[in-house]
Amino acid sequence: MIRSKEQKVWDMNRRSFIVASLVVMTLFVALAGSCLAQEDPVVEVQKYNRAIHIMVMLLAGFGFLMAYIRGYGKSALTATLLLVSVGIPLYILINSTGLFGHTEIDIDRLILAEFAAASLLIATGAVLGRLKMPQYMFMAVLFIPFYMLNEWILLDAGLGLFQEGAIADTGGSIVIHAFGALFGLGIILTMTTEKEYKKSIPTDATSDRFSMLGTMLLWVFWPSFCAALVPVGDVPQVAINVILALCGSTLATYFMSVFLRKKLEIADIANATLAGGVAIGATCDFATMPVAVIIGENVPHATSA
Amino acid sequence: MIRSKEQKVWDMNRRSFIVASLVVMTLFVALAGSCLAQEDPVVEVQKYNRAIHIMVMLLAGFGFLMAYIRGYGKSALTATLLLVSVGIPLYILINSTGLFGHTEIDIDRLILAEFAAASLLIATGAVLGRLKMPQYMFMAVLFIPFYMLNEWILLDAGLGLFQEGAIADTGGSIVIHAFGALFGLGIILTMTTEKEYKKSIPTDATSDRFSMLGTMLLWVFWPSFCAALVPVGDVPQVAINVILALCGSTLATYFMSVFLRKKLEIADIANATLAGGVAIGATCDFATMPVAVIIGENVPHATSA
Amino acid sequence: MIRSKEQKVWDMNRRSFIVASLVVMTLFVALAGSCLAQEDPVVEVQKYNRAIHIMVMLLAGFGFLMAYIRGYGKSALTATLLLVSVGIPLYILINSTGLFGHTEIDIDRLILAEFAAASLLIATGAVLGRLKMPQYMFMAVLFIPFYMLNEWILLDAGLGLFQEGAIADTGGSIVIHAFGALFGLGIILTMTTEKEYKKSIPTDATSDRFSMLGTMLLWVFWPSFCAALVPVGDVPQVAINVILALCGSTLATYFMSVFLRKKLEIADIANATLAGGVAIGATCDFATMPVAVIIGENVPHATSA
Repeated sequence: MIRSKEQKVWDMNRRSFIVASLVVMTLFVALAGSCLAQEDPVVEVQKYNRAIHIMVMLLAGFGFLMAYIRGYGKSALTATLLLVSVGIPLYILINSTGLFGHTEIDIDRLILAEFAAASLLIATGAVLGRLKMPQYMFMAVLFIPFYMLNEWILLDAGLGLFQEGAIADTGGSIVIHAFGALFGLGIILTMTTEKEYKKSIPTDATSDRFSMLGTMLLWVFWPSFCAALVPVGDVPQVAINVILALCGSTLATYFMSVFLRKKLEIADIANATLAGGVAIGATCDFATMPVAVIIGENVPHATSA
Repeated sequence: MIRSKEQKVWDMNRRSFIVASLVVMTLFVALAGSCLAQEDPVVEVQKYNRAIHIMVMLLAGFGFLMAYIRGYGKSALTATLLLVSVGIPLYILINSTGLFGHTEIDIDRLILAEFAAASLLIATGAVLGRLKMPQYMFMAVLFIPFYMLNEWILLDAGLGLFQEGAIADTGGSIVIHAFGALFGLGIILTMTTEKEYKKSIPTDATSDRFSMLGTMLLWVFWPSFCAALVPVGDVPQVAINVILALCGSTLATYFMSVFLRKKLEIADIANATLAGGVAIGATCDFATMPVAVIIGENVPHATSA
Repeated sequence: MIRSKEQKVWDMNRRSFIVASLVVMTLFVALAGSCLAQEDPVVEVQKYNRAIHIMVMLLAGFGFLMAYIRGYGKSALTATLLLVSVGIPLYILINSTGLFGHTEIDIDRLILAEFAAASLLIATGAVLGRLKMPQYMFMAVLFIPFYMLNEWILLDAGLGLFQEGAIADTGGSIVIHAFGALFGLGIILTMTTEKEYKKSIPTDATSDRFSMLGTMLLWVFWPSFCAALVPVGDVPQVAINVILALCGSTLATYFMSVFLRKKLEIADIANATLAGGVAIGATCDFATMPVAVIIGENVPHATSA
């Protein structure tokens, strides 16, 4: 009798243990679900935020910077707007077909499309003010697939030429800036006649301040550009490295500009300051702080000279 | 003896089980509390971030866009600043009385107040440069209560005319843009004399670039406008839809502008590009990507023509 | 036999209980780790976001505002860029030595460095357009250590003059704005000759619109400045208080400007509007909403008159 009573307690206890375990487990899974499911959107929204920052750079930053360099106002801004409007949907379209490697999800794809648009703007910067609007759009349609091929080969081990992860290029200095610049040189050689290339381009009085506006917007949002796809925990360190590199590069540019020309050229500030940003871009998540300032300070010497 | 010893082990076991369960439960509740309590502020701060983006649109975006459309510089900017400074506190004041439906909490209320200010700027855009400063402020005091009545009727089932949720208007295209535009037409008919309305308005050389700056700022931050009050998980999709619609709308505007006028008018770009943003606004969280581009591409045909 | 069988069940049960508990505990710790470890970076990234907003204020906001006040274009913008590029790395360098109190981690240190740069820009605003570029940099090198000494004494109980927490200065109105302004007066007295100080400074036609751009950028991002280091839960309330104070201050400035001068001066709007931001700054996390509007409305009376 006692036996069986004990047995009952035993069974009840075992049952209550199983029920309690199940309740704890269920609550646990529910919490884990809510915690992680809510965690991800929050991180996604922070990426979206950096995507907006990059859009400021593309439209307002590049637009007004180019308005200066070539002395063009309206047409540089319109060209910028059209190039971005062709480049981003085209990249998303091609990426969604899975032609070059795997397709990315949602906000990552938007950011990669913005990177492609940035590279496109760098490539066309070389001929800005020298082509007609339909030519810009033709360039965009031509450029994006080649950019994506290059990106696939360098970063996703496309065609098996490089191992995945073999190339450190967090801020996209190699894929975005170098490819854009080289493609731009190709365009100058093929799409412009000598007369078109040598055509002098008029400037006006306020264009320098507009271009300073463009430079400053690029300066300010550069950390978001470099940190756009970095894991959430690395963002602050990347941001600080990029800001220190930009400070160092700005100062170095000033001293070199004064030393070489005996006076300060606003164009040097605009161009070479940003060279610091490009230079830190490739390794912005490896560099320690002192290295960041040193990278920033040394690179413009070569580029601004 | 063995019995009772076993019983002791049994009791000890049961006690340890209860203690362990309590410890797990307590830790669990503590974690759930910390996790969820910290989750909400983070989401609130992300809303605040979008609220700041909307402020950029209201002050810098609308301000500089209007500086162009009417050719006014200083006075358009000052009017923008005054209208926003009257509209936002007035909305928050009336909302906190609970006169039109329920009051919103904190950051949601701020965003709704910014929406009202956007509608007010659209309404006054029709008469910008034609009124005196005190008249603008009078308009703001008159406009906000009517806007809130309209918002209450359409979205909160005020007066029982529409069912709650019957009208899809995530990006506020109906409540904000249509009401603002219609109110503006009413103001032209009542507050301006024929002479005032026909008065031609001077422009100057750099105003087109300032207005491009305004257009670009509106373009860039439009996703934050549409996604301001959307649940955190939907934000990335809304943002991508809005950006694709804006790209499509920009391209369509360019082609229509060239086709209809044989040359590109900067005013068309500014006006019709943003029409794509308004068109996607109402349904930005339903549309799939291809639909977004198509909406963006078709709407400006009607509006820019 | 039955006994030992029961004993086996018992042991098995106990073992399974221990294993289950261990699994739950492990999962629990893992979740807690992932949840809290991911929580902190998310909050850090939100701080980084506000740090970017402050950079917009420093470079574009202050730069273009100063371009107006002194009528200087290029050189005011270049000076702003150089001052920020010297100030931020210098602050981070000195802070990392631990000379003045404890060193801050990562993103907090960046924000404090930006605060120091803001104070430096206020101090040099008084002599902008009157000094040569190397003099600005000399000023920056001189200013930062004194600023840090002042910050240490007022906020970190340095030298034991004030108790920690005795001074309410969330938005940095006392440390940043008052110290910057007083230092600036000192510079006028010592670094400029009477001739330099009385030198009239040329303006041009578009500078007023550039300065309105600067004012609006400062207006828009002021909430991020005040909320930069506030705990995550207080950010929305601080933002709303600051926005209401800025609205009140803008309206009050308009009425005082019309009342005192019979016409609206753009310089008054720029200067006194922001006085509301400074006034709310010190107590932006204590004030309730009506108090915020009242603070905003009253302070400019004194400063703009």
